[in-house]
Amino acid sequence: MREDGRVLAIRRADNGTWEPPGGVLELDEAIEDGVRREVYEETGIKVSVERLTGVYKNVSRGIVALVFRCRSESEVVRLSEESVEVAWLTPAEVSERMAEVYAVRVLDALRDDTGPSVRTHDGRHLL
Amino acid sequence: MREDGRVLAIRRADNGTWEPPGGVLELDEAIEDGVRREVYEETGIKVSVERLTGVYKNVSRGIVALVFRCRSESEVVRLSEESVEVAWLTPAEVSERMAEVYAVRVLDALRDDTGPSVRTHDGRHLL
Repeated sequence: MREDGRVLAIRRADNGTWEPPGGVLELDEAIEDGVRREVYEETGIKVSVERLTGVYKNVSRGIVALVFRCRSESEVVRLSEESVEVAWLTPAEVSERMAEVYAVRVLDALRDDTGPSVRTHDGRHLL
Repeated sequence: MREDGRVLAIRRADNGTWEPPGGVLELDEAIEDGVRREVYEETGIKVSVERLTGVYKNVSRGIVALVFRCRSESEVVRLSEESVEVAWLTPAEVSERMAEVYAVRVLDALRDDTGPSVRTHDGRHLL
């Protein structure tokens, strides 16, 4: 996220959906290093990692995603092989454009009143 | 943990080390369900899950562990095939008996002043 409350999102090259930037950790990589690397690779934005805001388990695929709120430290956005669009979205735009299981990760990350959310989903809907 | 501040620990059958109860999630299992199942299987104790207190990445093996603080809801401890001893330890006993990478999970979980810790280790020591 940046100062004005907009959040960074990509439209994926492989399936055309809007998502927060992210990806898979390297085996020997510290978690925050992986967060910074993935955001930079997909968007060109350098970020500082603020805090863990949620844990999301896909029970169809057995995958657990960790979501961190980050602050942007640079301005210039660029595309990559993985991202055909990169945009700073308002929370309302996040709700419109992202599938439920991705929008909730952003909306959880914007909350200040709670610890990290722990949620279960089936790849399409929260359970 | 229980009311008096002691924490539940097991001594593992396979390698003799003291650890907090835990294990591997089933593919289709919600995270908190897996926490309750593993604690019950290894110790006979029923728990309610309070909150996520830490995330620990082993960069030697590429494994991420999630740690939750739980409250005990039953009293009777029993052993299992996986646990040759089960005990309620004081924080000082945790520091004495557990390897650094396990003791830190318990000590992080006992803190009330912070959000979840995100730490990296090599299987033996924190990095």
